[in-house]
Amino acid sequence: MINKLVERIKATNAPIVVGLDPTLKLMPNYLKEKNFKEYGANLTGAARAIVEYNKGIVDAIADLVPCVKPQIAMYEQFGVEGVLAFKETVDYCHSKGLIVLGDIKRGDIGSTSEAYAVGHLSGVEIEGVKYEGFGEDFATVNPYLGIDGIKPFMDVCRKEKKGIFVLVKTSNPSSGEFQDRLIDGKPLYEQVAMKVAEWGADLMGDSYSYVGAVVGATYPEMGAAMRKVMPKAYILVPGYGAQGGTADGLRPFFNEDGLGAIVNSSRGIIAAYQQEKYKSFGETGYADAARQAVIDMREDINRIF
Amino acid sequence: MINKLVERIKATNAPIVVGLDPTLKLMPNYLKEKNFKEYGANLTGAARAIVEYNKGIVDAIADLVPCVKPQIAMYEQFGVEGVLAFKETVDYCHSKGLIVLGDIKRGDIGSTSEAYAVGHLSGVEIEGVKYEGFGEDFATVNPYLGIDGIKPFMDVCRKEKKGIFVLVKTSNPSSGEFQDRLIDGKPLYEQVAMKVAEWGADLMGDSYSYVGAVVGATYPEMGAAMRKVMPKAYILVPGYGAQGGTADGLRPFFNEDGLGAIVNSSRGIIAAYQQEKYKSFGETGYADAARQAVIDMREDINRIF
Repeated sequence: MINKLVERIKATNAPIVVGLDPTLKLMPNYLKEKNFKEYGANLTGAARAIVEYNKGIVDAIADLVPCVKPQIAMYEQFGVEGVLAFKETVDYCHSKGLIVLGDIKRGDIGSTSEAYAVGHLSGVEIEGVKYEGFGEDFATVNPYLGIDGIKPFMDVCRKEKKGIFVLVKTSNPSSGEFQDRLIDGKPLYEQVAMKVAEWGADLMGDSYSYVGAVVGATYPEMGAAMRKVMPKAYILVPGYGAQGGTADGLRPFFNEDGLGAIVNSSRGIIAAYQQEKYKSFGETGYADAARQAVIDMREDINRIF
Repeated sequence: MINKLVERIKATNAPIVVGLDPTLKLMPNYLKEKNFKEYGANLTGAARAIVEYNKGIVDAIADLVPCVKPQIAMYEQFGVEGVLAFKETVDYCHSKGLIVLGDIKRGDIGSTSEAYAVGHLSGVEIEGVKYEGFGEDFATVNPYLGIDGIKPFMDVCRKEKKGIFVLVKTSNPSSGEFQDRLIDGKPLYEQVAMKVAEWGADLMGDSYSYVGAVVGATYPEMGAAMRKVMPKAYILVPGYGAQGGTADGLRPFFNEDGLGAIVNSSRGIIAAYQQEKYKSFGETGYADAARQAVIDMREDINRIF
């Protein structure tokens, strides 16, 4: 799958992943009203509105980007109905040829991590037949529990040719609270990065490993350092746009050939119609606004090469 | 909710939480066959078997213990159907008067962590009405992202009088990979523990904080140290039984009055019928075997006071 991701990034010339993180605030009112009227202003109505909203965006951007990243928390908050909307979103994105990165940040131990890996990246065996739970192509994972939490994901990735992105340095203000603390003269995030490189060495695609890393765009000074520590890890870079990261700050995350990193934008794309810049699209033009925002983001990023 | 937990621990004389972590391997064959026949040997059949299995155990133990801890990964592996089984399990446990600790180990940033907190410990607002997603009473959370990941949970806990258990030192063999690394002369897990004490100071029940901690039973030498660092944090102790922790090793996790810690056992209870010791109960007696295993565990733990 990492090979497919690299290939699709080259084909689209867009090292971009669009975060499908729907909330009621980001969604156009007319879409909410329509679904609330049909299904009720409740969990079902909200979940149906989410799916319709996502489909609109996906239809508008599917030819422009290689990958989307639904954030499962935004679905989970709507309970079982929301989780169903997550699954439907994954399936719809696949039907449009998109690679799906499940932003699930799971992490547990042994058989529990295995259950997450099986549920999200493979399928559970019932009486000898494999049934897909959610079926993403990549997933984000949390490293706090050590290799016991990561290895079950790696085993599944090896078998299914899927991939993970391990949290190394997150884009939030307090990420330094633990991640920046020095251990043997190196910050914890660098210790984690060294492990990511080690874990991934044995799980290689053509040029990059199945084991990638998450490093926030809000910390560009770390980009170059992290690239060196994890030369074979694809880096997922959140924090561009809404969280304050700029295109110039992204350069160090990439290799010379323009590969090695993929930049996420969520609100900046899916709620572009709420920005002054894209206001003329109007509420009902939210999908076209998202398309224009992707085109602008692609231009902004390609400017740095 | 922390007050209710303490009160129920006193009333049952059982500082025990039963892990409802169903897998197809732990489940009695007759239950699987019955549900596969009725619903198909697929995700639905598996999910229905899980709910029936759980209900049997819950009926058998509800008067003995204060709390259960369903591990959401074990449900999530069965996709949307599994997540529905999780929700039904939470609701059934509540109907039997049990406190429910969702072992979800979620952790993200800002609005994303808020979505998890809302989905699991409160309810999402739709047109001014609050709808419950999963509705647990407590949840486990991952601290790797710092206070940005924890505060949204704390805000919800304050409003809803619910609680969290922050991962401090997990019970798995490789937990030391990052958690034991020294920062300013203190291991990372102790740095996290210090933060747990700080975060929890402002969120107090009568004697204990809404902010608890997870510290594995496989590391008894840490029990006393962690009690001192986090005097007001309830400690959730996994790793008893199947993972090798013994009752003697548990003493340091408790305060003088026998409070301050709650010990988890999962497989050791819910699949007791598979053990030599409880074999006479047979497959169909799995619930009675679970009840006996809880009684034995209670005796084993109370021995140390």
